[in-house]
Amino acid sequence: LRKDNTGYDLKHLFIGAEGTLGIITAAVLKLFPRPSAGATAWMAVPDPDAALKLFALLRQQFGDRITAFELISRDCLQLVLKHIPGTRDPLNTPHAWYVLTELGDSSPGDALRNELTVALESAMEAGLVIDATLAENQGQSKALWRIRESIPEAARGEPGMLYRHDIAVSVGQIPAFIRDGQAALEKRFKDTRIICFGHLGDGNLHYNAYVEGRQRSDAAAREANDVTTVIYDIVKQYKGSFSAEHGIGIAKVDELRRYKDPVEIDLMRIVKRAIDPDGIMNPGKVL
Amino acid sequence: LRKDNTGYDLKHLFIGAEGTLGIITAAVLKLFPRPSAGATAWMAVPDPDAALKLFALLRQQFGDRITAFELISRDCLQLVLKHIPGTRDPLNTPHAWYVLTELGDSSPGDALRNELTVALESAMEAGLVIDATLAENQGQSKALWRIRESIPEAARGEPGMLYRHDIAVSVGQIPAFIRDGQAALEKRFKDTRIICFGHLGDGNLHYNAYVEGRQRSDAAAREANDVTTVIYDIVKQYKGSFSAEHGIGIAKVDELRRYKDPVEIDLMRIVKRAIDPDGIMNPGKVL
Repeated sequence: LRKDNTGYDLKHLFIGAEGTLGIITAAVLKLFPRPSAGATAWMAVPDPDAALKLFALLRQQFGDRITAFELISRDCLQLVLKHIPGTRDPLNTPHAWYVLTELGDSSPGDALRNELTVALESAMEAGLVIDATLAENQGQSKALWRIRESIPEAARGEPGMLYRHDIAVSVGQIPAFIRDGQAALEKRFKDTRIICFGHLGDGNLHYNAYVEGRQRSDAAAREANDVTTVIYDIVKQYKGSFSAEHGIGIAKVDELRRYKDPVEIDLMRIVKRAIDPDGIMNPGKVL
Repeated sequence: LRKDNTGYDLKHLFIGAEGTLGIITAAVLKLFPRPSAGATAWMAVPDPDAALKLFALLRQQFGDRITAFELISRDCLQLVLKHIPGTRDPLNTPHAWYVLTELGDSSPGDALRNELTVALESAMEAGLVIDATLAENQGQSKALWRIRESIPEAARGEPGMLYRHDIAVSVGQIPAFIRDGQAALEKRFKDTRIICFGHLGDGNLHYNAYVEGRQRSDAAAREANDVTTVIYDIVKQYKGSFSAEHGIGIAKVDELRRYKDPVEIDLMRIVKRAIDPDGIMNPGKVL
């Protein structure tokens, strides 16, 4: 049901509770027709501010026909080019930031691709896009997506300790967050390299950082907190989330205690105790 | 935040709780730019099945640029023409069912209107639309919307007792629900007139009925239950909602007890007792 105002929204209470309130035994999914037309563009943008303005521009024209809008830093692309065989830079010259976007609808022929071409011309005139390539066919589209999707694998190929963060702030604050995060890390640790990519349209970044000279080991893993704390403290200033996609589980129980509003934690505990008084539902997780 | 997976979704627990768990003292709203281009069409359709197919067709092409898709029966239009001064039938001949749709985006000039014209031509060829008129300007658009928005006022102008229902079923089941509702009422009460209109795209209907010879009085209001029970029993068969938009309050507490899953009611009571043990939050409402 798209609309139902008969009492408390128990569905949303169970979604994201990670099984600590009960077990979801069935789900109804709403399916949408697969778009018959698609358009994929890889665009170089001056900075995240321009990426955000570009998103607003395209969102206004294409609405929910935008199915992806991914911000990717040059460091991410370089990692992929270094570690993933058969990849190449989609553009002729290097740029600091990129956006990979995908549109879909059911318009006939090349209508959608042509509409995107016109929109990109306006964006270039407005200085929001420096250079761009549109996929001519499905093979080229796949090659562009392979770059985006290989970033985590490429990052694992690099020596040293990668601190991974799955954060969200409001969409409009993404550029400021990226600036503040970089400044704070550079101030605290020398030779920081930030591997930043994510779903700009969702306000969700994979904001990861290498710190020079640290190795992947248990000791280093225990020391992760100092880098991670710098990032999460900024997330908190922005009233953001330190776990946008991946939940709490057991790995982030301490962070929940540290960063979540105490009133919210109290309410969560009250609800947990009321629905699962014996604590038999996924014990030890989340709370 | 568009994404946040840090614990229970307390926001959705409070939305729709009608103040029975606590008082919402602040809210953050996400605003979208007002569409700069609009297109309004009033279409005659053979029946609700065709309206549903038309919705799927337009949804696939226009996505969330569809801002309204309202199903309206001939009876509704006739009520408006009878009771609301200055209204006229938008089409030359009467039809059993209508759809009023509105699109919005930021495309230049008449692009959106032209795209809708082409889409309506296809829909007419496919037999989904019998006749249609597109608003040429804002004044014509307002005149079409005035018909839709005057239906409740026009219904109040009619003598007799109107039984009002604000129901939701899944979008795809709207035509079957309308058929079943009409058949059940006609079988039980002679001279039933159904005033059916609503947001087809949300699966939400204002499925109201006049029953001949009943007057608007306390006695009649108490007798409302028999008509309403016929409708709500069908809603229950469809796993729908007997209160899509308007909530429970004190008026529908009995219906909640009758139609809501007992497990859900138990869970709601447990949550209510846990968060508001003294019962001071909007007492007597919902539960």
